Amino acid sequence: MSDLVRFGVAMERALLERFDERIARKGYENRSEALRDLIRADLLRDAWDRGGEGVATITLVYDASVREVTERIHAIQREAGDRVISSMHTHLGKERCLEVIVARGSSARLRALADRLLGLRGVLSGEMVAAAAEP
Amino acid sequence: MSDLVRFGVAMERALLERFDERIARKGYENRSEALRDLIRADLLRDAWDRGGEGVATITLVYDASVREVTERIHAIQREAGDRVISSMHTHLGKERCLEVIVARGSSARLRALADRLLGLRGVLSGEMVAAAAEP
Amino acid sequence: MSDLVRFGVAMERALLERFDERIARKGYENRSEALRDLIRADLLRDAWDRGGEGVATITLVYDASVREVTERIHAIQREAGDRVISSMHTHLGKERCLEVIVARGSSARLRALADRLLGLRGVLSGEMVAAAAEP
Amino acid sequence: MSDLVRFGVAMERALLERFDERIARKGYENRSEALRDLIRADLLRDAWDRGGEGVATITLVYDASVREVTERIHAIQREAGDRVISSMHTHLGKERCLEVIVARGSSARLRALADRLLGLRGVLSGEMVAAAAEP
Repeated sequence: MSDLVRFGVAMERALLERFDERIARKGYENRSEALRDLIRADLLRDAWDRGGEGVATITLVYDASVREVTERIHAIQREAGDRVISSMHTHLGKERCLEVIVARGSSARLRALADRLLGLRGVLSGEMVAAAAEP
Repeated sequence: MSDLVRFGVAMERALLERFDERIARKGYENRSEALRDLIRADLLRDAWDRGGEGVATITLVYDASVREVTERIHAIQREAGDRVISSMHTHLGKERCLEVIVARGSSARLRALADRLLGLRGVLSGEMVAAAAEP
Repeated sequence: MSDLVRFGVAMERALLERFDERIARKGYENRSEALRDLIRADLLRDAWDRGGEGVATITLVYDASVREVTERIHAIQREAGDRVISSMHTHLGKERCLEVIVARGSSARLRALADRLLGLRGVLSGEMVAAAAEP
Repeated sequence: MSDLVRFGVAMERALLERFDERIARKGYENRSEALRDLIRADLLRDAWDRGGEGVATITLVYDASVREVTERIHAIQREAGDRVISSMHTHLGKERCLEVIVARGSSARLRALADRLLGLRGVLSGEMVAAAAEP
């Protein structure tokens, strides 16, 4: 947060009032904080769309009673090597499990990793979401 | 655009530089313009998520050779009455047609209208997208 | 719709019951129709993500009182030439207008076209949505 | 996976061929598996849009050098009580950290929880994604 610069922004009063209500409802402390977050989210979407490097979370829900599904999920992560940074396992009740994998790489490679996991028998649903662009 | 106010924003230099590159690439004339658009898009998503009134476009691709599909698409629009503001028909080649419908109402009612259209036999794909919150 | 094939699908009874409720609510006439639509939507997302050719709608909301915004929106469409198939203009009240543009091309080129339009002064919000992959 | 039923689906040959290519590329073992996943994803989006109960992951990227941000992220999770099932912390380098939180509840309540976290000073970006509908 070191090197801060300041600049001025012009805006219609009505738009600014609606934005101020919105950020109060979201609990932001000030407009700069809220605007920085909007900008970061926009840059992240853009970097990701253009195939940039980033960090993503892959969330899988699976049925642990299906033969070998747990082993296969782990094997695919091991093969991915450095790309997988960490993972977390959560029981959702009975045989349903949720696995969150944090991985780093290009959007295309992470998409391919997610597809392999989602294609496994026993994996019920899943989603990949970009979390951060590489600095 | 009448009643303009100005305010200051603080931001890390590195973030601002990346944002300036992004808005140059998108052809924005200045930062205020780009920030206003980010804010409007955020307010629109929020209004829509909370069930607010708005204007949406429903885009359908359909196979005009399927019996009665064109008639049914028009009948559903007529039944929707005031909610449908305008519509446009475009030929995509051979029997494939694209219909864009601009409609106004709550997100739930527009969702229901879109679902009826998408469920018709002969409608191949479709999407609804929020275009504007009601002022 | 000429060349139909049939195949069998196996599914847990509970999942199928929830799907049947869902498609009844959406007004589908039968499961095959609903499954074909899910498959088409999935193929479209995939083609689009991989940079394929397609047809998209670009929806813009703009303030027609801003100097030259209408002219610029039309000029950009003319420059895009063949890529723009059709467009529709709708008044939303007072000075707010909505323009829907149907265009064809690669996702990258259509993204660039949408960005140019969204970057114009007076364009308040907008969205691009893939409507169909090229056959 | 106990109680399986079988049913027939009719589809244009060309559509089925493109789907078969797609599922081969994604590594699915068979069509039924791929169709079940498309149906589950559709039911999940629908349940979530209609305010249903579910499990979601909230992913935050934050700057751990910002005063008290770590404490606040943990305090909000504690206040959420039962709703938070598990969380995982990952270092992304220097001061950047990623926190994934798995939580359960209605989409509105989880949205509010995510908004509180995203509004904290020091939280740089974040995203909530629905992972599973409640059975």
